[in-house]
Amino acid sequence: MYSIIYTTTSSKEEAKNIARELVENKLAACVNIHAIDSVYAWEDNVEEDMEFALSIKTLTSKTQDITNHIRKLHSYELPAIISWKINGEAEYLRWISESVV
Amino acid sequence: MYSIIYTTTSSKEEAKNIARELVENKLAACVNIHAIDSVYAWEDNVEEDMEFALSIKTLTSKTQDITNHIRKLHSYELPAIISWKINGEAEYLRWISESVV
Amino acid sequence: MYSIIYTTTSSKEEAKNIARELVENKLAACVNIHAIDSVYAWEDNVEEDMEFALSIKTLTSKTQDITNHIRKLHSYELPAIISWKINGEAEYLRWISESVV
Repeated sequence: MYSIIYTTTSSKEEAKNIARELVENKLAACVNIHAIDSVYAWEDNVEEDMEFALSIKTLTSKTQDITNHIRKLHSYELPAIISWKINGEAEYLRWISESVV
Repeated sequence: MYSIIYTTTSSKEEAKNIARELVENKLAACVNIHAIDSVYAWEDNVEEDMEFALSIKTLTSKTQDITNHIRKLHSYELPAIISWKINGEAEYLRWISESVV
Repeated sequence: MYSIIYTTTSSKEEAKNIARELVENKLAACVNIHAIDSVYAWEDNVEEDMEFALSIKTLTSKTQDITNHIRKLHSYELPAIISWKINGEAEYLRWISESVV
């Protein structure tokens, strides 16, 4: 089974560092990064920040390993880490499997 | 259970207004906004527009409330409102639960 | 049932061409395009590229047709093609159904 794991960072540099670390360590096959504006609840206020979102394509079985890596590398005390299962074209999914160990 | 609810608006201002309203009313914990180019079918033509996408992180149980809020606030007659279920890191999901009432 | 099909291209022009082709041929109701930075594994290296992501909203039953179209139109040997099921607001889902044949 395959998943997207989605997290956000405060800078593009931090996003790229996490992405490279996950791909180098064969925890993810591919990471897509894009700029976002975030609006969120924090201590009874509505806060706004510019952030970067990472969509990490991987095997579902790597979710806990990736979560641990993100929490270790991440500058936030409580990073957003969510995920959902994906299907896909057979040859592309095979490539994900082969890129992850 | 947790979901992303995804909608699109015609301006960043409208996207931010909807995001703030949902977070202030404790219907959503966090909203991520990004610019998109949309290509879509409309009355037998292919139309193109610049828009903004909102990815709203919330409890699945808030889907109908959020849908009602979006339809009330939105400038479109028929806004795109779709959703899918998510998993996530336990502490982050707890934060979503606590931010939503 | 409804799905998002997600793919990436090397240019905005290619993304728009694929989006228009899918909407014109009534394979998809709407395509949202945004710029991304990609970090991925390729032949034991970590590569980086600027790309564009397409989020294609359609009937789940069109997944194979859309996959075939993307592979025919796409400049990559092995394009990323993944998908996941979505729910949505009833009237908007009806519009997707009516836009796809």
